[in-house]
Amino acid sequence: MAGMGPGVDRIRRFKLTGTGAYLPRTVVDSDDLDRTHGREAGTSRRQFGIDRRHYAAPDETSTMMAVVAAEEALDDAGRAPDQLDAIIGACGVMEQPIPGTAPMVQARLGLGGSGIPAYDINATCLSFVPALETALAGMAMQGWQRVLIFASDIASAALDHEDPEASAIFGDGAAAVIVEAGEAHALLASRIETYGDHVNLCRLDAGGTRLRPHEDLAGFLAASRFRMDGPALFRATARRFPAFLSRLLERAGITPADIGTVIPHQASAPALEHLRRALNIPADRVVDLFASLGNRIASSMPHALHVARRDGRLGPGTCSLLVGSSAGISLGGAVIRW
Amino acid sequence: MAGMGPGVDRIRRFKLTGTGAYLPRTVVDSDDLDRTHGREAGTSRRQFGIDRRHYAAPDETSTMMAVVAAEEALDDAGRAPDQLDAIIGACGVMEQPIPGTAPMVQARLGLGGSGIPAYDINATCLSFVPALETALAGMAMQGWQRVLIFASDIASAALDHEDPEASAIFGDGAAAVIVEAGEAHALLASRIETYGDHVNLCRLDAGGTRLRPHEDLAGFLAASRFRMDGPALFRATARRFPAFLSRLLERAGITPADIGTVIPHQASAPALEHLRRALNIPADRVVDLFASLGNRIASSMPHALHVARRDGRLGPGTCSLLVGSSAGISLGGAVIRW
Repeated sequence: MAGMGPGVDRIRRFKLTGTGAYLPRTVVDSDDLDRTHGREAGTSRRQFGIDRRHYAAPDETSTMMAVVAAEEALDDAGRAPDQLDAIIGACGVMEQPIPGTAPMVQARLGLGGSGIPAYDINATCLSFVPALETALAGMAMQGWQRVLIFASDIASAALDHEDPEASAIFGDGAAAVIVEAGEAHALLASRIETYGDHVNLCRLDAGGTRLRPHEDLAGFLAASRFRMDGPALFRATARRFPAFLSRLLERAGITPADIGTVIPHQASAPALEHLRRALNIPADRVVDLFASLGNRIASSMPHALHVARRDGRLGPGTCSLLVGSSAGISLGGAVIRW
Repeated sequence: MAGMGPGVDRIRRFKLTGTGAYLPRTVVDSDDLDRTHGREAGTSRRQFGIDRRHYAAPDETSTMMAVVAAEEALDDAGRAPDQLDAIIGACGVMEQPIPGTAPMVQARLGLGGSGIPAYDINATCLSFVPALETALAGMAMQGWQRVLIFASDIASAALDHEDPEASAIFGDGAAAVIVEAGEAHALLASRIETYGDHVNLCRLDAGGTRLRPHEDLAGFLAASRFRMDGPALFRATARRFPAFLSRLLERAGITPADIGTVIPHQASAPALEHLRRALNIPADRVVDLFASLGNRIASSMPHALHVARRDGRLGPGTCSLLVGSSAGISLGGAVIRW
């Protein structure tokens, strides 16, 4: 395990000191959702392996959910908001195009006069991976001591209820993490691979610079629903996943047998099953929240990290693999030794 | 100039090897714009100091403009697209919410099967600053040798023609930069300060997770125009700017007299004038493209860098200050020794 010795670069060392999460108040049962969508009760459960998910109410904005998760993470770390040196937003979709979600979260944390840098990183569902790299880079380059990373997503805002899979598998939620300068933990490796050939397999077209509601309202509204070709997305991702995984583990200097806990993005039931098979790892080593929470876009991965920490699965010296796929498509992950 | 000696950390060293820019075909003269908006010809020129700006046609998407700028930057660097190790999007507003603009640019550069990591960073108009930090961090942490950073923005997509200032000062465009591993250049310091108290002074509400066109169309459309309180924004920024500037220059170990070329975000004519006064620096040391191009959101700063490089203003051993402000609000900048 070459990457795990004392030779790990200083820049890869950190300490995870707190985590938190928020789930919207409204729980939507799959059978109820099936009936609402005019499908037989049991369809979503049987076809997509999901029992329920949470949907955000209007007051449960991306910012509000991120702030509650951040406050829990700060409490867990024993830190006050004004002890932060940076706030990195890692949402899949921003609350609004301007400004970013991170400045809005900064303000709601009572830090609006602090000058603490707050900006956003976007790799859709994998945003947590580059956000963690950014936190570590800021510790090395800027002398940051304590960084808040948050991810907050509201998939339910743009689901197409005519699409059985997309309308079943997504949910809403937020998660937050405090990372601090320190020696305790090591990011043995992190990696993103992007394959833009598949850029159209998973998309939300309306809401940026290209489509203009004041010029073509009908076109804009038609493009305001999330579009996903689930089977093609699964095939494109699965085809590239084993080689990606080998490169990531090789860079970390570990083998699947060294992984204590797998902390995956919760893309879908087949994606989680494919991950277990690719790693040839027992199911109980994988944090699987899919049946009860669904795919919460970028918040899925840090939420799974929160659950793993809360459940005492990040013991000193053990390794975790954070891993998943995102629109783009990208494959990405990180290996952390605790 | 403590920061400028050989003691500059290895992680801060790089080489800028190429730059490029794209401006949309359509040039909109201020007098014509005034007439279109029912105002006396000469109003925009006199009140806001802008002669003309470029507006993107439907085929000139964020991705298309970014790709043309990137190809120019790659040519300038003498590199082929497949020599890139990463693509960092640094747009103010994404082309669409999912996926990010970087994977779309990757695909259009013919790299869709390459696996080259492609993701986006958002600090609105200041996105280039954290994007440059990310490129350098990737060189240190991932061994990247060559990174494309692009910024491409279409302000004209969401301007409110009832707002004399906002409808006058913004334009569209793209810029791209190739940075490579090397010793030639040094990022002496970079800094972002965010003051979320002013989060509402500059905003585009519709297009993210909060407002839903299918639930409240009228509200969504009303929020689909960029809103800016220009005078309040100027006051809030100007009040914090001198102290911010001192902190940035102090960290770089330089004084204003050491700055060969100021490469600013092109926020507005008063913002550029305030910058000159705060630095007490002659006008000819500032790259000022505002009158002919306007504020092109996040592409303004790398475009000004492109112009400075093309004009031979980045001589070896000289220092440049990249600096500006953004929605959030944030103040940000970087000091580079060439």
